[in-house]
Amino acid sequence: MTVIPIPADSLFGVDNLPYGVFSTDGTPARVGVRVGDHVVDLAAALDDAVFAEPTLNAFMAEGRARWDAVRARIADLVTGDVADDAVHAVTDVTMHLPIAVADYVDFYASENHASNLGRLFRPDAEPLMPNWKHLPVGYHGRSSTVVVSGTDIVRPSGQRKAPTDAEPTFGPSLRLDIEAEMGFIVGAGSPMGGSIAPDEFADHCFGAVILNDWSARDIQAWEYVPLGPNLGKSFATSISAWVVPLQALEAARVPTPAQDPTPLPYLRGDQDWGLDIDLAVEWNGDTVTRPPYAGMYWSPAQMLAHTTVNGAAASTGDLFGSGTISGTEKNQRGAFIELTWGGAEPVDVAGEQRTFIVDGDEIAISATAPGANGGRIGFGEVRARVLPAHTD
Amino acid sequence: MTVIPIPADSLFGVDNLPYGVFSTDGTPARVGVRVGDHVVDLAAALDDAVFAEPTLNAFMAEGRARWDAVRARIADLVTGDVADDAVHAVTDVTMHLPIAVADYVDFYASENHASNLGRLFRPDAEPLMPNWKHLPVGYHGRSSTVVVSGTDIVRPSGQRKAPTDAEPTFGPSLRLDIEAEMGFIVGAGSPMGGSIAPDEFADHCFGAVILNDWSARDIQAWEYVPLGPNLGKSFATSISAWVVPLQALEAARVPTPAQDPTPLPYLRGDQDWGLDIDLAVEWNGDTVTRPPYAGMYWSPAQMLAHTTVNGAAASTGDLFGSGTISGTEKNQRGAFIELTWGGAEPVDVAGEQRTFIVDGDEIAISATAPGANGGRIGFGEVRARVLPAHTD
Repeated sequence: MTVIPIPADSLFGVDNLPYGVFSTDGTPARVGVRVGDHVVDLAAALDDAVFAEPTLNAFMAEGRARWDAVRARIADLVTGDVADDAVHAVTDVTMHLPIAVADYVDFYASENHASNLGRLFRPDAEPLMPNWKHLPVGYHGRSSTVVVSGTDIVRPSGQRKAPTDAEPTFGPSLRLDIEAEMGFIVGAGSPMGGSIAPDEFADHCFGAVILNDWSARDIQAWEYVPLGPNLGKSFATSISAWVVPLQALEAARVPTPAQDPTPLPYLRGDQDWGLDIDLAVEWNGDTVTRPPYAGMYWSPAQMLAHTTVNGAAASTGDLFGSGTISGTEKNQRGAFIELTWGGAEPVDVAGEQRTFIVDGDEIAISATAPGANGGRIGFGEVRARVLPAHTD
Repeated sequence: MTVIPIPADSLFGVDNLPYGVFSTDGTPARVGVRVGDHVVDLAAALDDAVFAEPTLNAFMAEGRARWDAVRARIADLVTGDVADDAVHAVTDVTMHLPIAVADYVDFYASENHASNLGRLFRPDAEPLMPNWKHLPVGYHGRSSTVVVSGTDIVRPSGQRKAPTDAEPTFGPSLRLDIEAEMGFIVGAGSPMGGSIAPDEFADHCFGAVILNDWSARDIQAWEYVPLGPNLGKSFATSISAWVVPLQALEAARVPTPAQDPTPLPYLRGDQDWGLDIDLAVEWNGDTVTRPPYAGMYWSPAQMLAHTTVNGAAASTGDLFGSGTISGTEKNQRGAFIELTWGGAEPVDVAGEQRTFIVDGDEIAISATAPGANGGRIGFGEVRARVLPAHTD
C-alpha cells in the first residue's frame, strides 16, 4: 500500500481531484484521477467497471448524485493507503482524449474579444453586433477534430484572400492563431424538447477543461460570411487532459460583470457562475499573455441555458467553449490576432519579433483557480506543437 | 419461402435497394433493405451480425468494396426466394434513424436560394457574397437533433426581434419554415490530416437521403451575425428513413451547371456529381413546390472535398446537407420564406392562404431520380407534423 505524497504547493490537492483517461505501456486506456504528481487508476482502486471505459462518458451519464458520491469516496481513498498497483507517476502515463465528444459549440462571450475582433474583421462597422448583449452568440464546431493536449497540430491549407487580392489562392494558412478558452463538458444531458435553466447548471455540467480553438485567420476572414466560421476552425481544437469537476470550482464562483441590458428571463438565475480562473499562454516558453476568465460577460450556465432553450437536446459528452478570453489590457488578450493587432504590432517571443504562428512553434495554455482549502487548483495545460502543412 | 412482388411502377425496384433501420413489434432495431412494398431483414436473410446493429454505421465503415459486394448479393437474393420470416410488409414496420450521426454540416449550394435569402436578409447589399462562387459555403449544425421522418417537431422558442422592434422578445417562433434539401452520408471516413478529392467521392460517400432543415427565420435573423445560424436551426433536422446507396444514383449523375470562375484545383474533378433528383414538397397534402436538384451549383463531391481540404477528419456517420434546393421558378423554391417572399406573397394551401407554418401542419418532402433500368427510383419521404411550442 502507498500513501500518495501531495506537495504543499501542489495544484492537484484533494480540493481538485480532476478526472482523466490514461494508459501505461501495453494497457488499455481507462479512467484515473490526478493527486499531486500521481495518477490513481480508478478502475483498479474502486473496482468499478465504469472506470475501465476508455472515456469518461459512461460515468458522466450517471449524473450529479453519483458524481458527488464518487468524489467523496475518492477524497477518502487518496488520503489513506492506496494499493500500489493503482498508483502511477504522472510522468509514466500517456493521457488520452478524456471524453467522446458529442456536439461541440463555441461561444464568443468576452466583450473585449468580440469588440477587438469586430474592429479587426469589420473596420468600418460597429465592433459589437446589436445582438451581442442580448444573447451568448455561438456556433457549432467540428467534434471529430477535438484532440487532447500533446497532439501535434498540422498547419491547415485552404482558400485565402486578402482584401487587396483580386482572387483567392489556395495554400497553407499564413495567419495561424490560437484562442485561449475554457471548455465545459455536459455530463447529464436533457432530452429533445427539454431545456436547462441557468440554476440547473450544476446538475448537468460535469466539469471544465482548458481549450485552444486553433484559428486560421486568413481562411476564416474569407469564408465566414454569411454562415460563420468553418474551415478556419474545423481542422483542430485542443483540450487539456484533466477534467476539473464542477465541485472543485466552488471557491472560484463569482458574479459575472454587470449585464446591461438585463437579459431575458430564461438567461437569468440566482446562482453565480462567473468563474475566477487565471490563464497564461506560453509561446515557445515565453508567457506572452494572461487572460482572466472572471471578466467574461456571459457565464457557462447562461451558455447552456441558451443552447437548450429552443428544445435542442443536450447529450453526455457535449463540449462548449467560452470563446476567446480577453481582458481589458493588451497583455490579457487571448488570441495573437488581438495581441499583435492583426499582425501590425509584433510581440517578443524568446527574443524574436512574432505575429502569427511559425512552423515548429509550441503553444501551452495553463490555468489555475482558487481551491476550497485556501490555496489554488490547476487545470494542467493544453500544449501542442505546430507542424508544417502537408504538401501533396 | 417468398418471392417478393415488385409492382411494375415501383420506385423501390432492384435498381434502388435502399437501406434502413427497422423494427417490428417487440423486436430490436436492425438493418433492412426496401424492395417494392416490403422490407427484407438483412440480419436474418444474410446471417451477418453487422446487420443486427441498430444503425448502419458498422456496415458503412466497411467501405466501398464491401458495399458493392453486399449490394450484388442483395440483388441476387431479392430476385429469388427469400425466407418468409425475413420479409415484412412496409406497413408492418417502424422505421428508426438509420445512422448514428457524427458531424453534421449544412451547405448553401443553390445559387437561386443563396441569392433569394441574401435579398431577404440583407436587402441593402449584394445578395451573393464575394466568396460564394469560389467555395461551397457551409457551417456545422447540431448532430443530436437529427431525427427520422415521422418524428413530430415541436415549434421552438427563442429570441426574436423584428427590425422595427426596440428590443428582442422571447417566445415561440412566428416564422417557422422548412428547407428542402438532400443529405449525403459519409460511410468510409478519412483521418485527421487527410483529405478527400472530388474524384474519390464514391469511395467515401455511402448514400443519400432527403433532408428537411427546419428553420425559425425570426430567431435566425436576429442571432446569425457574425457567427452564423445556431438556435434558428439547432432544434431539429429531419431525414428520410431510407438511405439510397450511391450506386443506385449512377443514372442520375449529370454535370453541375457551368462554374464561373473556374474553381481552385482542389475543387475540380473529372467525374460528374451533379444529380438529377426531383423533389416535391407537400404542405397539408398540397404540393406547393417542386425543387430540382440538378440545378445545384456545387456538387456533393465538391462539398466533401472542401470539408476535408484543411485536414479535418471525416467520420463514418458524418452527414452533410446540400442547402435548400431552389430552382429558377417561384414554384421550385425549397423554403417557404422564398416561396412567399418573406411572408409578403401567401400561397394557397388546401384552400387557405399561408405564409409560414401553423401548428398542426404536416410537411412531407419526397424525391425521385432516374434509375438504372430506365424507370425511376424513390427516396421515400421525410414527413413531420408540427406541434405547438412547449409552455412552462
